[in-house]
Amino acid sequence: MARTAAAMIIGNELLSGKVRDANTQVLARELRALGVELRRVVVVPDEVPEIARELCSLRGTHDLVFTSGGVGPTHDDVTVEGIALGLGRRVERHEGIVRFLQEHLGPRCTEGHLAMARVVEGTELVGLDARWPAMVLGNVVVLPGVPESFASGLKALREHLRGDEAPYVLLEVLVAVDEGTIKPALDAVVLAFPDVSVGSYPRYDTSAHKVRVTFDGRDPARVRAAYEAFARSLDPEHLVR
Amino acid sequence: MARTAAAMIIGNELLSGKVRDANTQVLARELRALGVELRRVVVVPDEVPEIARELCSLRGTHDLVFTSGGVGPTHDDVTVEGIALGLGRRVERHEGIVRFLQEHLGPRCTEGHLAMARVVEGTELVGLDARWPAMVLGNVVVLPGVPESFASGLKALREHLRGDEAPYVLLEVLVAVDEGTIKPALDAVVLAFPDVSVGSYPRYDTSAHKVRVTFDGRDPARVRAAYEAFARSLDPEHLVR
Repeated sequence: MARTAAAMIIGNELLSGKVRDANTQVLARELRALGVELRRVVVVPDEVPEIARELCSLRGTHDLVFTSGGVGPTHDDVTVEGIALGLGRRVERHEGIVRFLQEHLGPRCTEGHLAMARVVEGTELVGLDARWPAMVLGNVVVLPGVPESFASGLKALREHLRGDEAPYVLLEVLVAVDEGTIKPALDAVVLAFPDVSVGSYPRYDTSAHKVRVTFDGRDPARVRAAYEAFARSLDPEHLVR
Repeated sequence: MARTAAAMIIGNELLSGKVRDANTQVLARELRALGVELRRVVVVPDEVPEIARELCSLRGTHDLVFTSGGVGPTHDDVTVEGIALGLGRRVERHEGIVRFLQEHLGPRCTEGHLAMARVVEGTELVGLDARWPAMVLGNVVVLPGVPESFASGLKALREHLRGDEAPYVLLEVLVAVDEGTIKPALDAVVLAFPDVSVGSYPRYDTSAHKVRVTFDGRDPARVRAAYEAFARSLDPEHLVR
């Protein structure tokens, strides 16, 4: 069985519309390449009990849980405390991060900066060299919310996360007519290829295609067969690509 | 007490990274203007049991629940079935939507298109005139996932959703130094203004500001007082704006 994953995106800035989340898409794509299925994303506020409760719920039902955000030094950075509460562990100061901060900041390093060295007891750090590390606690991975740091942390984790799943492959057909018109052809391919995930995404702008139909799966031959069966079943005039 | 809200964003395309969600930010901003607090967002796959379970969980714990996506005519549009299961109601064909589709599509209208007329028993339609309607079921609001339709559906609902909450106001300070450096000033304002939500958002690019500090609340005088207290407490050379 392929592994499943969930993400907890932490931050009032997302729930108040100040910021549009970019990390879910980066995580989703990274996991697809690893063959891991992202099943759920939850956005929660900067509140310790909410983070703790959601962590417990997600890690019991998914093989991997990723968190984004809330690991800075300020009052609204409460991810470490939330995860500690959820796992029933203490928060401690990590001497490796203290040294990292002191080396990088030099004489500018204050007690305020060292608040970033708080970790949950038992945390394994991955990639603490040039950049901020990912924190790993069993099946829980804690990443910063700033998009560049989130992406670089995930990249540092790539080998750590690699399993024996085949990566997902994706093929797509662009169609010039609407979803209602292609519904019979879609239903037929969905029925014939239960092992391929078929998606249908309409658009209502002036683009040349009205629907993007996608075929996803871990078996490239089956994905291609579904894609070809669908493309063949359409009126050639309805195909954009 | 101000009302709370949750959002359920439905779609494999988000969990596989094909699409980056745009609707959460639009919803968050609309709700801020109404004075409603968005507390949680959950992204779930196109699966009836998942949608049903999440709906039950969210509507028991929030005053309003918004769903995005899964209301088209194709096999992966299962939101109506998921909500029906969650609420223990039947799915029926809505004659008003049938007429709407027939009028808009004319002779192109097929049985495939009429799959869009499925609604949960007891659905109230808001804004079924020029555009696709929002479906309202008590405290549950069902909107399409296509961003233009999601935004126009929300706009049509504005009066329906208006309560007696004051809208949120937001002020912000841009700071030229890092979070560790301003942490004492931040901690002081957080302590002095427990009724104002203070956010601190770092960036690591070449922008002139290194941190954006935000002040949010429903009482404009208190938000301004917190903002001014913080700005006054900073070294003037550290202020960008």
